[in-house]
Amino acid sequence: MSKVLVFGHKNPDTDAITSAISFAYLQKQLGFEIEAVALGEVGEETQYALDYFKVDAPRVVETVANETDKVMLVDHNEFQQSVNDIADVEVLSVVDHHRITNFETANPLYYRAEPVGCTNTIIAKLFKEKDITIPKDIAGLMLSAIVSDTLLFKSPTCTDEDISIAKELAVIADVDIDTYGLEMLKAGTNLSDKSAAELLDMDAKSFPMADKNVRIAQINVVDVNDVLSIQSELEQEMLNENQAKNYDLFILVVTNILDSDSVILALGNPINAVEEAFNISLENNRALLKGVVSRKKQVVPQLTEALTK
Amino acid sequence: MSKVLVFGHKNPDTDAITSAISFAYLQKQLGFEIEAVALGEVGEETQYALDYFKVDAPRVVETVANETDKVMLVDHNEFQQSVNDIADVEVLSVVDHHRITNFETANPLYYRAEPVGCTNTIIAKLFKEKDITIPKDIAGLMLSAIVSDTLLFKSPTCTDEDISIAKELAVIADVDIDTYGLEMLKAGTNLSDKSAAELLDMDAKSFPMADKNVRIAQINVVDVNDVLSIQSELEQEMLNENQAKNYDLFILVVTNILDSDSVILALGNPINAVEEAFNISLENNRALLKGVVSRKKQVVPQLTEALTK
Repeated sequence: MSKVLVFGHKNPDTDAITSAISFAYLQKQLGFEIEAVALGEVGEETQYALDYFKVDAPRVVETVANETDKVMLVDHNEFQQSVNDIADVEVLSVVDHHRITNFETANPLYYRAEPVGCTNTIIAKLFKEKDITIPKDIAGLMLSAIVSDTLLFKSPTCTDEDISIAKELAVIADVDIDTYGLEMLKAGTNLSDKSAAELLDMDAKSFPMADKNVRIAQINVVDVNDVLSIQSELEQEMLNENQAKNYDLFILVVTNILDSDSVILALGNPINAVEEAFNISLENNRALLKGVVSRKKQVVPQLTEALTK
Repeated sequence: MSKVLVFGHKNPDTDAITSAISFAYLQKQLGFEIEAVALGEVGEETQYALDYFKVDAPRVVETVANETDKVMLVDHNEFQQSVNDIADVEVLSVVDHHRITNFETANPLYYRAEPVGCTNTIIAKLFKEKDITIPKDIAGLMLSAIVSDTLLFKSPTCTDEDISIAKELAVIADVDIDTYGLEMLKAGTNLSDKSAAELLDMDAKSFPMADKNVRIAQINVVDVNDVLSIQSELEQEMLNENQAKNYDLFILVVTNILDSDSVILALGNPINAVEEAFNISLENNRALLKGVVSRKKQVVPQLTEALTK
């Protein structure tokens, strides 16, 4: 059998990158010949974590069928968020914490999803179930992913399991969660010298909702004006993207990680579904969403429901 | 929260019925208010197991949204195999051992699939992970499902885990696997006084494959002539069903549980895909498939591939 490749979603965030690394390590201990790869370059937050724990970034791939016929997915399942030729390979296993949509296989497989805040929380449980020790560098990366996905436990996606596993990982990784975590999150908010197109692509995912194709980008900041100061450039780029990629709606969620609120900027159709989903009125295409920090739990289900009516 | 309902697939076999019972028991111990229900009457094999271990058959339901908004699925995920109003309720969790297709949720959920022979093998692992003791009657039903799904460990779907867990369950249930298992399997092959329509409906599932809608029924026998003696009535009924339910192909798999071969009877279009899938020539609409006993592993993937070309 050729080497198995494991990877997280496109536009990889810290969980997508590090869950591929931690899951590949686990599978190697279980006897698989496997390599963690990435569907895009790592962002600054992830690079901070990789540098801190002295781990190389995974190799970036555009396609996989040219080098393997078997893959494992982490931190995603929806095919449009996966590698372009996903339909040409067999998915052996999935570890994920998202809704399941637009995913199918011809054969039975391992699928492990739990409604927790971070894929690495589930992977940590798999290490325990298989009785395999987590090395210090891997533990540090797994902790980084939990901090990233839960915004230091402030996101409504965060569960008691995420917190207790993060505490265990912090002991192995020998870091103070709050100190390390805030430094890592801040590293991800360095937006200087990023163009509007780059900002919109940092952490963006596409979602089929009813008969609509919705693009939702999220940017973490310590001051929303770091992003919204170039609102007109962002809007022009969102309109370009809607046209070029056939998105019906493009929504940018700018999340302040210090006060745990978000401002959304939305363009496309049907725009009234956005207002209905969040019970807001857009002004100048914008609205404040108090207490919203989670795309998965506070944006996607609400918008799906509004568009399905 | 209203009571959660848990159920297996339509046309329930022994695993569909008993995995609902065993998973409901497990969830009750974990604090859920939950009831196992069924999407159809139990067959004779399942009734044998229920009688032996003195457990009542689950209540049969046609719809669920009229009494709950939250469900758990066992032994299936494909919506066309589930309750008719599945799209109107939230799926909290799935435990399954089949391919994933035509399944989607708006929210993250628990999903536990493993490529083992029987859903109850996975549920037995969940009991262990949660450190909950399996009572004798539940163990007997779980063992019955493993025997049923693996045809007493002869199916290629059977894994080492199925065998070792079946042995543990047999100790708890206090039965000899071979003696009890063969009696139970034989109870399921009592086809006397069943009409052609009833035979075709005993264990039938619908599968979307490429752009085709394929119906695959399977009947276990100790002599294939018990079924094939009424071939013309079966063919007439299969043609009626294809027309009435818009199936492109109807395939009946008659499996001899003693010699582990199957005879298939196939009608519909494209019929050459059936011949290509199994590398056979149909004569009188029939062919012998040597060593084929598993619809999931030896019929569905092969046919999916032939239809996808």
